[in-house]
Amino acid sequence: MDEQFLKLLKDEYQVVFQKENLLKQAFTHSSYVNEHRYLELTDNERLEFLGDAVLELLVSEYIYCHYQESPEGKLTKLRAAIVCEESLSKFAIECSFDKYVRLGKGEENSNGRKRPALLCDLFESFLGALYLDQGLEAVNRFLQQVVFPKVEAGVFSHEMDHKTALQELLQRNGDIHIEYHLVSEEGPAHDRSFTVEVQAGEKIIGTGIGKSKKLAEQNAACEGILYMQKKSS
Amino acid sequence: MDEQFLKLLKDEYQVVFQKENLLKQAFTHSSYVNEHRYLELTDNERLEFLGDAVLELLVSEYIYCHYQESPEGKLTKLRAAIVCEESLSKFAIECSFDKYVRLGKGEENSNGRKRPALLCDLFESFLGALYLDQGLEAVNRFLQQVVFPKVEAGVFSHEMDHKTALQELLQRNGDIHIEYHLVSEEGPAHDRSFTVEVQAGEKIIGTGIGKSKKLAEQNAACEGILYMQKKSS
Repeated sequence: MDEQFLKLLKDEYQVVFQKENLLKQAFTHSSYVNEHRYLELTDNERLEFLGDAVLELLVSEYIYCHYQESPEGKLTKLRAAIVCEESLSKFAIECSFDKYVRLGKGEENSNGRKRPALLCDLFESFLGALYLDQGLEAVNRFLQQVVFPKVEAGVFSHEMDHKTALQELLQRNGDIHIEYHLVSEEGPAHDRSFTVEVQAGEKIIGTGIGKSKKLAEQNAACEGILYMQKKSS
Repeated sequence: MDEQFLKLLKDEYQVVFQKENLLKQAFTHSSYVNEHRYLELTDNERLEFLGDAVLELLVSEYIYCHYQESPEGKLTKLRAAIVCEESLSKFAIECSFDKYVRLGKGEENSNGRKRPALLCDLFESFLGALYLDQGLEAVNRFLQQVVFPKVEAGVFSHEMDHKTALQELLQRNGDIHIEYHLVSEEGPAHDRSFTVEVQAGEKIIGTGIGKSKKLAEQNAACEGILYMQKKSS
């Protein structure tokens, strides 16, 4: 395996494989195996099968624990937004996995290295290999660095409404009382504009404007989330 | 929780919950919660969300390890045959879970206690509760008693071809050489009948008849699986 990549895994994510062959397999695309039959390699597809399930469980557990007030339907939506090709391929690129996967020439020439489906499978294969090498807790530690901070920052929360997301965010730091105040209501009846402030504890953390009180509250909550994120980073 | 059920879990599956409330929640259907609002109960839907992912991982790992020669596509098919409403609802009944779930009257009267979707969710909720109470290994031990013996017996292997299934079954007991012999070929060209024997090690374990050599081999393998199952039970 590329030394630079091993160093990256160690330095960035504190991951050192015991069985380097598993890591190698995770980064071997079927197109590479097909073009190098004499090497008798194994591609990453079985590892992807396993890694997919490992990821599903750890993401499920994370959101089960962090969104204690959300019903199952919302959890399912949020999980689907996290565990999908688009998100996982981005995580793979963020971890530079795209630079180190071994592809056949055909796949390489048709820009396979940038193909979301391939990168998504690669990310899952890596998790599968890490699981076999070091168990569930090691994969969890990796996700705590790569995936969960994004979930916490609300990157996937477009699936939830902002008011719920803000509530979840604040409740993680204990039970903070949240209130929405209508500050003003302006304009003619057919083009009314509402301004709402959201208050967490003693502090106003966001203001929102909208054509209904409901929309203004959602916008205020969105600003509140951004405020809380800046504060904690 | 019903004492008889606690005894059943303990005697049959060596399962004793630390947090009995989790078990109670797993056996509380939303229809019951809706009809007893004053009790402020929580239904089993969030536990089902978690249990679904726990089951998916453990089944994936089981078949990943036990079908070492099968490509990802076959593993996926087999997993889908195991983790589906039809199978899981049968497991729930086998464990008598249907007798102990708390339903609302409406659900009860419309025969909800026998509804596969409800029973499937119940099985997954139970696994979710067990996971939260005692971790992944405890759920694995439960599945080793309830689910995996069926997988091993080939109950779900209609998704695979019989020759592969037989090979997998025999390889679990070490590397046994399998051979198919054409015993006879009879009848006119347009209605030919082939008879094939399958030999494992020194022993003939099955005979199959078919309109092609291939079909006869599949039938012989099927008989071979049945023979091996009888032998090991």
